[in-house]
Amino acid sequence: MPIELVSQTKVCGGLHQQFNHSAETLNCTMRFAIFLPPQASESSKVPVLYWLSGLTCTDENFMQKAGAFKRAAELGIAIVAPDTSPRGDDVADDEGYDMGKGAGFYLNATQQPWAAHYQMYDYVVDELPKLIESNFPVSSIKSISGHSMGGHGALTIGLKNPDTYRAISAFAPIGNPVNCPWGQKAFTSYLGDNQQDWLAYDASELLRKSSAAISILVDQGDADTFLAEQLKPETLIDAADSYDGSFELRMQPGYDHSYYFISSFIDDHLNFHAANLLAS
Amino acid sequence: MPIELVSQTKVCGGLHQQFNHSAETLNCTMRFAIFLPPQASESSKVPVLYWLSGLTCTDENFMQKAGAFKRAAELGIAIVAPDTSPRGDDVADDEGYDMGKGAGFYLNATQQPWAAHYQMYDYVVDELPKLIESNFPVSSIKSISGHSMGGHGALTIGLKNPDTYRAISAFAPIGNPVNCPWGQKAFTSYLGDNQQDWLAYDASELLRKSSAAISILVDQGDADTFLAEQLKPETLIDAADSYDGSFELRMQPGYDHSYYFISSFIDDHLNFHAANLLAS
Repeated sequence: MPIELVSQTKVCGGLHQQFNHSAETLNCTMRFAIFLPPQASESSKVPVLYWLSGLTCTDENFMQKAGAFKRAAELGIAIVAPDTSPRGDDVADDEGYDMGKGAGFYLNATQQPWAAHYQMYDYVVDELPKLIESNFPVSSIKSISGHSMGGHGALTIGLKNPDTYRAISAFAPIGNPVNCPWGQKAFTSYLGDNQQDWLAYDASELLRKSSAAISILVDQGDADTFLAEQLKPETLIDAADSYDGSFELRMQPGYDHSYYFISSFIDDHLNFHAANLLAS
Repeated sequence: MPIELVSQTKVCGGLHQQFNHSAETLNCTMRFAIFLPPQASESSKVPVLYWLSGLTCTDENFMQKAGAFKRAAELGIAIVAPDTSPRGDDVADDEGYDMGKGAGFYLNATQQPWAAHYQMYDYVVDELPKLIESNFPVSSIKSISGHSMGGHGALTIGLKNPDTYRAISAFAPIGNPVNCPWGQKAFTSYLGDNQQDWLAYDASELLRKSSAAISILVDQGDADTFLAEQLKPETLIDAADSYDGSFELRMQPGYDHSYYFISSFIDDHLNFHAANLLAS
């Protein structure tokens, strides 16, 4: 699985790199970004935090705006950020910012014209980690985080694979997509009209039914303009009632949906992931 | 002097805001950004660090990418970022990224068509601080920093006004603009052909002749692609030989010219400014 270097920059003693590769699951060329902390070497492999971004983002938003590298370098954690959808001229798209390119919703589409490329779940869960672990000085120990649509991705992927990920965190996740406009629009197109099929990608539903105990941390700003209509943290909190694992959802007063919010609490999330990733 | 709120976002316990105002010195509407740390109040005014950005930037680049707010909030320092040139449809411009809009070079232009609006020196030194100090809970204690063209701006403005600013820092500054292509192009257009007139805006010249002792910190990446042709840190180092103040220029191995470089060392600069701003 060859990868092609796109850019390389030293930051906080570590290395930020972007690569292109031919993604088999998505049937297109994909770009991803990786931050390698200074501790990473073949004789000292580091764990990986996978970061899933929100609607309209690429691999760049988190890397440029989250301010995560100083703490990640101190902790010795690599960070991998994939793109948010398949890309390319032959990939189906939609006029809306919340469907198609930039809006893959981290699921495997079953409906045409989407199914040919929109298999982001398989890409993030299977193909990308294999690629990362075979090309970089990282271990197979991993956890997952994300923002908004990517918070939905982190929660659903983590809850469906509790033996693969050590911990889950999310910023302002779409917590109950089967009951919000963003989720309903995307799931109808990608998964079809049978709403039973949607439940496999609903964080609240998965949390309610989970028999796992993977630790979960969620931050949500109470000045987030998407809070009531799209994000529904109260549904997540209800679903966590019977959850066996640690679940903490922090309402952060005055914070909105932006990367300024993420940058305010990213160190807490990195510390949370480190406590799980670096435990023996 | 009325100011119009453009955006407002909570970050790291403080507040990031953007405002528009009618700038008298520049004869146009200007936008600036301010970060107010949580300590700032009318009964507890905080000092201000002015940040001058580089070519092509606006008030947004530093605020979104530098990762400065966590430390600034801990230290209790406000940060103000002006735009890099006058703006608007009736403002003269140039096809190059290194002249005209986005490239004001923090000087007072004497040549037409530039002189009508390009008076960034007066704007940064006089008009903007008056506006800031009359509209926000900040003191008149200030220091100055910047990147590339803005590093040139910070060094020249600070050295020309050593009683106004408590300290100067710069990332990858244009250290000797009279002897590099960026500076020669800009100074010829803005100041005319008489190279004697250029010396008033050359950091190396000002440093060599300074009788002040304002403390200066400079960081420069040795993998910066602009290093040899445009930035010339060695000229600054030579000029500092007879300087009475503290002057430190740190060559940072492997770092380039990007905001990843700035974000790697911004905490050091904030600590340096705090030591000077918060001293009694």
